[in-house]
This record gives sequence, C-alpha cells and structure tokens, in this order.
Amino acid sequence: MDDRKLLEGIRSLIGEAETADDCAMFALGDGRILVSSTDMLHETTDFPQGMTEFEMGWMSVAVTLSDIASTGASPLQVLVAVGLDRPERLLPFMEGAVACAKTFGASVSGGDIDSHQELTAVTTAFGIVPEENYCRRSAARVGDAVCITGIPGRAQAALDGREEYRKYLLTPEPQVAAGQEIARCGAHAMMDISDGLVISLYDIADASSVGLVLDEASFPLFEPTEYAKTCFLFGGGDFGLLFTAPDSVLAEISAEFTVIGRVTAGDSVVLEGDILPRKGYAHVWGDAGN
Amino acid sequence: MDDRKLLEGIRSLIGEAETADDCAMFALGDGRILVSSTDMLHETTDFPQGMTEFEMGWMSVAVTLSDIASTGASPLQVLVAVGLDRPERLLPFMEGAVACAKTFGASVSGGDIDSHQELTAVTTAFGIVPEENYCRRSAARVGDAVCITGIPGRAQAALDGREEYRKYLLTPEPQVAAGQEIARCGAHAMMDISDGLVISLYDIADASSVGLVLDEASFPLFEPTEYAKTCFLFGGGDFGLLFTAPDSVLAEISAEFTVIGRVTAGDSVVLEGDILPRKGYAHVWGDAGN
Repeated sequence: MDDRKLLEGIRSLIGEAETADDCAMFALGDGRILVSSTDMLHETTDFPQGMTEFEMGWMSVAVTLSDIASTGASPLQVLVAVGLDRPERLLPFMEGAVACAKTFGASVSGGDIDSHQELTAVTTAFGIVPEENYCRRSAARVGDAVCITGIPGRAQAALDGREEYRKYLLTPEPQVAAGQEIARCGAHAMMDISDGLVISLYDIADASSVGLVLDEASFPLFEPTEYAKTCFLFGGGDFGLLFTAPDSVLAEISAEFTVIGRVTAGDSVVLEGDILPRKGYAHVWGDAGN
Repeated sequence: MDDRKLLEGIRSLIGEAETADDCAMFALGDGRILVSSTDMLHETTDFPQGMTEFEMGWMSVAVTLSDIASTGASPLQVLVAVGLDRPERLLPFMEGAVACAKTFGASVSGGDIDSHQELTAVTTAFGIVPEENYCRRSAARVGDAVCITGIPGRAQAALDGREEYRKYLLTPEPQVAAGQEIARCGAHAMMDISDGLVISLYDIADASSVGLVLDEASFPLFEPTEYAKTCFLFGGGDFGLLFTAPDSVLAEISAEFTVIGRVTAGDSVVLEGDILPRKGYAHVWGDAGN
C-alpha cells in the first residue's frame, strides 16, 4: 500500500475537494485566498544519503514552498517542527531552513522542537493569492497547452549517482516567482512535479477530467538518451511547475517554460500513441505492489 | 539539554519576537491577524501508554488548537502530517483528529502521510483574530489579576495512575470559546498551560518583564492535598488558559475562571513569600539536568 492509496481511504473523512490539491485553501473573504501546505520528511526515507543538516533544512522548506508556488501564491510564513536525535543538529538545520525561506521571500516564524530517534522535519507554509489568480489541479481545459518549467530528471539522475546534478537534488529551488507570474498571466491548472512528471500529469488529468497527449520531440531532456527520458517522465525530486494554459496566455509569460503537449478529451496521459503508466514517487508500506 | 534551552540557541536566527509565543502571527493588513501554530508528537515520548489511535488523533489536534485559543483567535483549519508504522492506523487516527477539529469549530483541510518506525503526528492550525483582541504573553501589566480556567493538575494525576481523571489526559479540551471571550473582553496577556502552570507563569513574567505573586488559598485543587497542589503547580498536559487582566475586565467575562494571584513589579513567581522553581514539562535530550 502506498500513500496515494491510503489517502483514498480517508478522502471521505476529509472531503474530496480538500484532498484534491497539495495545498489547503481558505477564502479570506476580501478577494484573497490563504493557501497552506505541510510536508513530513524523515532522514532515513526522505533525505538522500550524505546530506548536510543545512541541506536537510533547506530541502524541508523547499518542498513546502514548492506546493505554495504551484497555486500562484506569494509564500509568507513557514513553521518548522523538528524531531532531533542529537540537539547539536538543530542550528545548522535551522540555518538551512531560514536561508531557503529568505531566498524565496518567506520567513520562518515559529515551530516546535522534539526529541526523536531520527531527524524528522515537518514544515508548514502558508501564502496568499488573489482569488482570480489562484491555480489548482482541476482547472485544465481541452485545448490548453501542457507546459513545464525547468528540465525535469536531473534530481533523479543525481540520486542514481550523477554527481554533476547533485545541486538539483540537495538544494532544490521552488519556482516561487515563476508560479506567481504564470498564475497572474492566466494559467488554468498548475501543480509541482516533485512526485514525478507523469504521475503529476495524471493528477491533473484526474482532477480536471481530461486527457493529456505529450509530444516527445519537445521534451527538454538533460541529455539526448533513453535514460534521460525515463528520468524526465518518472523521476522524482525536481521542483519544476507543470501548468496548462491557452495559447493566448503563453505569449504573456516571461518565465522560461516548454510546451510538452496538449489537453484533450479522455482520461489518460498518452505519448506517441501509448498510454503511459501511472507511475512516480510514492511512500510504500511493507506489501509493495498492492 | 531541553527544548527550551535549544530554542534559546536558535532565537537569534528566527527572531526574538517570533519565538516569544506559541503562535506565529501575521497581520493580514485589514485589521485581522492570522495566527498559526505547529506541534510534533511521537508515540513513545508524547502519547500516554494505552491510548487508542482515535485519542492520539484527538490529542494531536487539541494541543495545537489550544495554542490558537490562547491568542483569542477562532481556529479555522488544521493540517495533519502523520508518519505511520502501520497504514491501518491512519483511519482511526484521522477520525479522532477530525472529531476534535469539528468539536472546536475548525476543519482538517489537508496534510501529509509518510511511512515511519513509530507513529509521529505534526498538526498545524491557523486561526484569525481581530487585532484589538489579539493576546500574547508579553502584555501583562502590574496590577493585573492572574487568572486560570479549569482545574489544573488532573492530567498529571491521570498520568500518575489516577483513573478517574483519564479523560483530562486522553481527550483534552482546548479552551477555544473561553479564549475568544476572554480576549474580546480585554484580557492583557494569555497563554495555555499545557507545559505546566508555574513554567507558564514564568513565560508570562519573562515576556512581560513583570513578577507574579500567587495566593495559595485561591487555588482550585482537584482535592485538598499536597499532591494535588504539586500537580496544580508543576503538572503538564492540562489545557486550561492562563491570563492576566485588570479587575474591570474580569466582571465582563462569563467563562469560568479563578483569580490565583496578582501581577507585580519584579521578575519571579512567588508563592507565600517563596520564589517558585522554574519547572514544568520539557523534552530532554540525553544529558538531563543541563
């Protein structure tokens, strides 16, 4: 069983709409929406081996700011709860957390400290976005271009040992400025691709009740190999944004992006006539394969 | 080293004001303040033995709503991140979390699920309070009455084996309605006493640069014994509110409370002429006593 299956089990308890996006939303009643997101990371399962505490702190904040960025919001505050095996790890961890928050316009404004067998970090961030710019997964429309920022796959390649891409894995950069600009220009659906590109494409297809057809020739690969294509499609850990928008909107966006396909009727993600497997990064408990 | 000492070490990094209260605050710019708080709980160190998953879920949300309540805010949304050793624990845990949130006017609006060796829960809540009602630790003034809600000590007694008080330990009730009313009536400083009463009194004394003198005869003890007095002063796990307010405000408050002392010049918490030790609940790493 993986975390996506588990989420299905509690969806009726929390609410369909509440579990459809990476961020929770709350209408402030004055034309603004408050978005918030929380992420839990454990040293043994979530942090690549050999990371410094500074990098762990940075990454912990980056994953949450990436969720905020994908709604088009400006991130404002981050709360950091840390479970520590050794107290001396706190300071470098928090230095990384604060550095990341500051770099992307937010501040670490509080948190909690606890003793624990292994380093465990839960970051929660919130941001604010004008209602008219707010992006979610469910807003893709047939005819939209499917676009991504960045070059997905390098974090996965680094995880596989490609040293030259280590910075994409260890100190990822949430696309905060790009997210706000893309949303302001009028993108329809948006989300981040940290779980992998194809599984994120399916998230948008499911939430929007559409299909997506990809054009392989357009893929921005980090090198022209089958390996790079696999990392591009199924690798995790990259912090690019995936969005859909009508062609008229694309011309307005100054952030760098690549059109990789088109929103169609249907319910699958299709590449060169083949339906792609719904595969990406997921936490797995014991009985893998279920 | 304990978590309060650790916090001192990162205070300069995060900011003095940002670490002075249990909640972070953000001015929404329209006369309202957004408050948020996060708490991390681990099964082996934070949940009393024999708790059900439902009770763990309830308590995880309750601790965070108690922080929100202490600012005078209405809690709105709660995010729940859970690390699970066994996936089948998720549903009853979330049922407890949702039940607690609902009971106190909030909703569980999102979260994260992760695999982990032991059940680990981090809840983050936010609420909104009008600027003029917003309470924090630093606002106590000389001459204020020192007041508490409830009968502190019963959670500690339950932890010591007193079965009749188990509900105060296992399904604590954050004082959400009382907090809002006390704040609206014009209380000065407020916080919750979940770390223990005396250590919380010191938190207010430190933050407000005042002293506090207690009147033993006024203590609402759960039984007339020295043991109950010790639980009252130093026990943890109770979710009452501690606040200070001028006498003119007290008459306006309809929530039940007890005046247990008076704010004075100074920097200590004094009972019957003796300075009380700065003692309460704190997470401790290895070298206890430092």
